[in-house]
Amino acid sequence: MPSRDTSMDGFDQAAIDAALAKVGVGKIDGITKGFPAHLPATTLAGIGGLGLNLLRGDTPYPVAVLLRSALDHNGQWMRQFLTHTGAYLMPHGKTTMSPQLFALQAGNGCWGLTVATIQQAMVAAESGCRRILMANQMVSRADVAGAAALLRRCPDLVFWSYVDSAEGVRRLHDFAGAAGLGGKLRVLLEVGMMGGRTGCRRMDQVSATLDALAQCAASLSLEGVACFEGLVHSEDAQADERKVGAFLDFVIEAARAADSRSAFGSEEVLLTAGGSAYFDMVARRFAEIRLTKKTRVVIRSGCYLTHDSHYYDDIFDRIEGRIPEAWRRMGRLRPALFVWSMVQSRPEPGLAILTMGKRDASFDIDLPRPVWRYRPGVDKEPTAALSGWSVKGMNDQHAYLAMGADDELRVGDLIACGISHPCTTFDRWRMIYLADDDWSVTGAVTTQF
Amino acid sequence: MPSRDTSMDGFDQAAIDAALAKVGVGKIDGITKGFPAHLPATTLAGIGGLGLNLLRGDTPYPVAVLLRSALDHNGQWMRQFLTHTGAYLMPHGKTTMSPQLFALQAGNGCWGLTVATIQQAMVAAESGCRRILMANQMVSRADVAGAAALLRRCPDLVFWSYVDSAEGVRRLHDFAGAAGLGGKLRVLLEVGMMGGRTGCRRMDQVSATLDALAQCAASLSLEGVACFEGLVHSEDAQADERKVGAFLDFVIEAARAADSRSAFGSEEVLLTAGGSAYFDMVARRFAEIRLTKKTRVVIRSGCYLTHDSHYYDDIFDRIEGRIPEAWRRMGRLRPALFVWSMVQSRPEPGLAILTMGKRDASFDIDLPRPVWRYRPGVDKEPTAALSGWSVKGMNDQHAYLAMGADDELRVGDLIACGISHPCTTFDRWRMIYLADDDWSVTGAVTTQF
Repeated sequence: MPSRDTSMDGFDQAAIDAALAKVGVGKIDGITKGFPAHLPATTLAGIGGLGLNLLRGDTPYPVAVLLRSALDHNGQWMRQFLTHTGAYLMPHGKTTMSPQLFALQAGNGCWGLTVATIQQAMVAAESGCRRILMANQMVSRADVAGAAALLRRCPDLVFWSYVDSAEGVRRLHDFAGAAGLGGKLRVLLEVGMMGGRTGCRRMDQVSATLDALAQCAASLSLEGVACFEGLVHSEDAQADERKVGAFLDFVIEAARAADSRSAFGSEEVLLTAGGSAYFDMVARRFAEIRLTKKTRVVIRSGCYLTHDSHYYDDIFDRIEGRIPEAWRRMGRLRPALFVWSMVQSRPEPGLAILTMGKRDASFDIDLPRPVWRYRPGVDKEPTAALSGWSVKGMNDQHAYLAMGADDELRVGDLIACGISHPCTTFDRWRMIYLADDDWSVTGAVTTQF
Repeated sequence: MPSRDTSMDGFDQAAIDAALAKVGVGKIDGITKGFPAHLPATTLAGIGGLGLNLLRGDTPYPVAVLLRSALDHNGQWMRQFLTHTGAYLMPHGKTTMSPQLFALQAGNGCWGLTVATIQQAMVAAESGCRRILMANQMVSRADVAGAAALLRRCPDLVFWSYVDSAEGVRRLHDFAGAAGLGGKLRVLLEVGMMGGRTGCRRMDQVSATLDALAQCAASLSLEGVACFEGLVHSEDAQADERKVGAFLDFVIEAARAADSRSAFGSEEVLLTAGGSAYFDMVARRFAEIRLTKKTRVVIRSGCYLTHDSHYYDDIFDRIEGRIPEAWRRMGRLRPALFVWSMVQSRPEPGLAILTMGKRDASFDIDLPRPVWRYRPGVDKEPTAALSGWSVKGMNDQHAYLAMGADDELRVGDLIACGISHPCTTFDRWRMIYLADDDWSVTGAVTTQF
């Protein structure tokens, strides 16, 4: 088991505390989605003291909620994973964009945060993060000026972004000169997959980008190689793994090419891959690589913390099949994010309309999945939704729950749906409840999309 | 042409002014998506004075923007439509959830606003609206308590919600008693379509709901009939229109049934349908109905103000084919909402990756449609995107622009995409720019989702 630095030096504890204090005094009232409009206005920090329970009908529906026990479990799971693999974690902040969850992730031993935009980097820095990887090209003048402003405001911040073309390198060089950066801009060479997203596909593109970097060494410092393998997903798990394996080989080939040219300007070389689907493969494969400089393997899984009830949960079956026996004892990641809604109409046999729609829950990969039902005032506790129930569609503010014609479900019954792909549920809410396993509200988190 | 009341009595001008003043001093800085992170923090009201231009690279990309000229045109179009038809408009506030756009709609002669939830009603009321139609069932205790709180805070507010079942009526009655409402809760009978969403499908359901209302007359006042016809959409426009026509006939049958039972408790009866696809048919068909009480026809189109570049634009072709010649002289609604993004990578022939993803633009009905291109520092003005270009997919933060292998497009070029279904773009942004036709930023609006 490799020894590793588990310090929180990717975060500034005083800045975390200040950020949490600031959002904690944020006003919460009836214009906050999910908060009961008849209660007096409160602050975010005051929500836990209101004695709300999501099953008792204290709130309007829908509400989004995070189960505290699942968040804690997933954080511990990831800590153990990192200890097992020696990898470092910079989870993607775009998933939650939540200062409170960033603070939780800092406590989970994260080495920093990943972001996709300068605005997200600003939120991460304001939340106390001092090691930020922008897993994207900075291409506009305002991006580079924004990064410069961020580095002036947080002189202890370490910030990287991507390059994948000579043209991108030259733009960055030109903008960096104009932005008055105090030092060099740190960049990672992005390698991509044919038919994929950004990133050099071929070694001649890698060479051209390295050539441009060599010409722009006065303003840019190459400090690693990055890729995103997470988009590989078909019905054939083994074919997917072969494809990801071959891609990781290409990433390593690119890193070796840069190393052999002495293109890396930093003392250690970052090797980073993203996604929540193959982080075990990434951690193991990248750990084997030997360059002339020390390497650090960084994974960027953003969804480990909340997991989900379908897409990532299915993917976890594959991860479980790949990891060593010792790791499997850590158990599985657990879904933490749910949306409770209420049956508002039973207009036809076999159909219930729920108070939840595209404005409230993810629908980009799968529709929400009914997991529990509860009849307020009658049931002692939620029971599993019937296996035949499914959300067959959503409008902006309504969901269509298809069910058996004789299944018993009434107006006023509560349905908890699990989420597939948490990212696009988080950005539908500015305030998300935290709850105990009995659905008592213990607090809330905010988002800053 | 029927005479009509065009007063703004659905809105309180002093409350509008107060709401605009309040959001106008809201802080805008680098944590606001779309705002340049290197500029000093400002207020919403200060944005217009910064001299930003969206083509000059003053901002990060993506940015969402509303063309002021299109908003003005669409507002005038709707004013004329209302004058022609004698219908009243309560546009659905869920589309934009923007106090500034609500104020604009008040000025367009809207009679009030439609909402889907109590939280949306709170935002509408805080924005100065004093006539609110909740086009949804209130089914939770907190909903009714919230409505009661809202009515206590705004004693001059007129507020309606829907009922579509005896069970829903009894719940409302029970909750209304507990919530301590000063007077009766105003409700509309909702009629629905077989295979559709909420609403009574058959006359026996209508009768059962009316029976329950008669028993709960102490707390509930039936004041009209409502439906939503907007989900009818197939390739066959004529079949769709026949289906909508038959459905409107059923709505009228339900209204006549209630009228013949003297079930309406108000002096006038509201007849209301929603959606932005058939509002011309609704206005004309409902204008013909004669009951024993005066009727008022209310349409609820939420998308007229911003229109779009695909879904509603195609639908408008059908509307144009149906309306009288005199109305066609009003011209067409124009798309007002766009997202500008930047080419960040050209990794393969025929593929450009844009800085825009599912976090930034609608994808629930169609993917964004490239409409203009612009090369900063080179082009004098934007030119039309090539007709073969299309966004073939989006990830959270990236779009895949498919193009010809030889088409010229570089890293740093700007692409404006039109939107299909504006609702799900609005809720991705807390601040949306307002711009002149030369893309100079004249101000911004906020959203409160």
